[in-house]
Amino acid sequence: MQELDVDVLCLAEGPDLLYLTGYAAMPLERLTMLILPRDDDAMLVVPRLEVARVVEYEDLFTVRPWVETEDPIQIVADRVRASKTIAIGDTTWARFVLALQAELPDARFLAASCVTTPLRIVKDDAEVNALQRAAHAVDEIAHDMRSRPFAGRTERDIQREIVDRILAAGHERANFAIVASGPNAASPHHESGERVVQGGDVVLCDFGGTMDGYCSDITRMYVVGTPEPEVVDAYDALVIAQAAAVDAATVGTTCADVDGIARQVLGEARLGDWFIHRTGHGIGLEAHEDPYIVAGNELRLEPGHAFSVEPGVYLPGRFGLRLEDIVVATATGPRSLNAASRDLVSVH
Amino acid sequence: MQELDVDVLCLAEGPDLLYLTGYAAMPLERLTMLILPRDDDAMLVVPRLEVARVVEYEDLFTVRPWVETEDPIQIVADRVRASKTIAIGDTTWARFVLALQAELPDARFLAASCVTTPLRIVKDDAEVNALQRAAHAVDEIAHDMRSRPFAGRTERDIQREIVDRILAAGHERANFAIVASGPNAASPHHESGERVVQGGDVVLCDFGGTMDGYCSDITRMYVVGTPEPEVVDAYDALVIAQAAAVDAATVGTTCADVDGIARQVLGEARLGDWFIHRTGHGIGLEAHEDPYIVAGNELRLEPGHAFSVEPGVYLPGRFGLRLEDIVVATATGPRSLNAASRDLVSVH
Repeated sequence: MQELDVDVLCLAEGPDLLYLTGYAAMPLERLTMLILPRDDDAMLVVPRLEVARVVEYEDLFTVRPWVETEDPIQIVADRVRASKTIAIGDTTWARFVLALQAELPDARFLAASCVTTPLRIVKDDAEVNALQRAAHAVDEIAHDMRSRPFAGRTERDIQREIVDRILAAGHERANFAIVASGPNAASPHHESGERVVQGGDVVLCDFGGTMDGYCSDITRMYVVGTPEPEVVDAYDALVIAQAAAVDAATVGTTCADVDGIARQVLGEARLGDWFIHRTGHGIGLEAHEDPYIVAGNELRLEPGHAFSVEPGVYLPGRFGLRLEDIVVATATGPRSLNAASRDLVSVH
Repeated sequence: MQELDVDVLCLAEGPDLLYLTGYAAMPLERLTMLILPRDDDAMLVVPRLEVARVVEYEDLFTVRPWVETEDPIQIVADRVRASKTIAIGDTTWARFVLALQAELPDARFLAASCVTTPLRIVKDDAEVNALQRAAHAVDEIAHDMRSRPFAGRTERDIQREIVDRILAAGHERANFAIVASGPNAASPHHESGERVVQGGDVVLCDFGGTMDGYCSDITRMYVVGTPEPEVVDAYDALVIAQAAAVDAATVGTTCADVDGIARQVLGEARLGDWFIHRTGHGIGLEAHEDPYIVAGNELRLEPGHAFSVEPGVYLPGRFGLRLEDIVVATATGPRSLNAASRDLVSVH
């Protein structure tokens, strides 16, 4: 904060608050905000009815409960009125940002990530272990799905099963489960629906949850019966591209270069035009966070950076393929946290 | 927009976008933003990999896909540069608000709710029907839980069952399920955990999900065996307070007065100091939205206003009670959408 000339951090519900305090506030319209001045003690402004949720954190901050007839923005503004530069949590709602700005017209507002990203982007051993446990859990689901029926079921039915398995495996929350079959998989963020999986379909399953605060995220491919030769060829190229990008993710390499490797392999297989997204995203308390593995990001990987490597190819109206592992950069090379088979497995 | 001198609405992922277009964008770091000028056609700025998700909306807006190496904020800023007053979606992330403000230093930014709340607060017949269907679904769960075992199970186990039932009943999403037993129920937003339900415990179950876009939300009370006389007395007063507030929710009454009725009844029972939150919140696409049934809110109810009526009493270290129904104000009087028994039911 001193280097950046930030006088105070104002963190509403979200991952920065969770990272710094361990408190998972509720994402609702009643403002919870941690006020963390550079040179003073921290205070949590919190709805009175949620005070019992924060008593265990009393060694970290003073608690300032607000009752339903008070304006919490006024409370925060009064507390930080002397601050020239205020760094506000990146995911804070616009309504709160605008209300604070109206109260503090002379303050400069920055996104708090300028302070928190350098802290959060490097995972310590406990965090890597948490990511590893979550990765093991989804590896097992990806494996178990290999012996489950697909044909004749709707995408939504398979999605429901995966969500159930995510929770049963010990995640406190299922964050998403994309089940995209046949031509639907050509839409990378397809919303699983009523389409019934058919013989010959390629089915993309991309899913993850939150376990002990940290996220899992894996993509594996299934095919009902025997895939078409074109699918096999494209998938073979994808496996090579994904592995090459993982291998390239060594300490000191730029994120852009890791992305470039995957793109180069798919380009050589004449699939480059169909790889329409970045190669990956950081992962931790958030499903997507820094570092982003994308062209233009000249950030160099450091030990403890954790991110997905997930190239894909998407042929509109025909099929889509993606393969995703979570990888941690370490002093001894990239370490893949996921170990589930990467075969294009034939299912019923 | 004309009345408020708003030149353009800028709506990121969230309920306003869903309300105006039907499109449920993904709450991720890649910006999706609807640009809706007062006097021009609408445009949706959307990540390229999500374009397939919006083709069905092409009659509503032009689609401007952005690729991973573009800055979507730049695209939005270029499009709205002539606007003097920009109304931005209330739940838009701070990082996007600050980035837009940096690009457009002369623009005035307002929260979009100034435009959208007057539209969204009045539910039409289709919306009331959707809320009714969702209410029926949770009524049935509340009923079924009366014959389920409670004693010897952890709160989290019961919570998991309720979440499963919410999904099985046809909700596309479970939004929350608070299971608070014994003294834990004295924390209105208790996080369900490993506490094992005991004989004599009062158990508060407050849960809801989203069905066809609209939210359910109900609270019912269960007791293992026979409740203590003090619990019975407090619950009797709570039932009267809740019914009185529902009856008071007639067209033309202020939200503050509805809140005041519940508060008055509990005050007469000497429980007023333990009723530590507002009486209710609006409900629709969001679990909590306008109108808020709270002291100080002089808004008068209109036909089509939909909201919870949920007074509670919370005795620290001892027990907590809450009773909640969703109510719609109509020309012929308040209509409760929930019909599940309000008895303090004895369970095993």
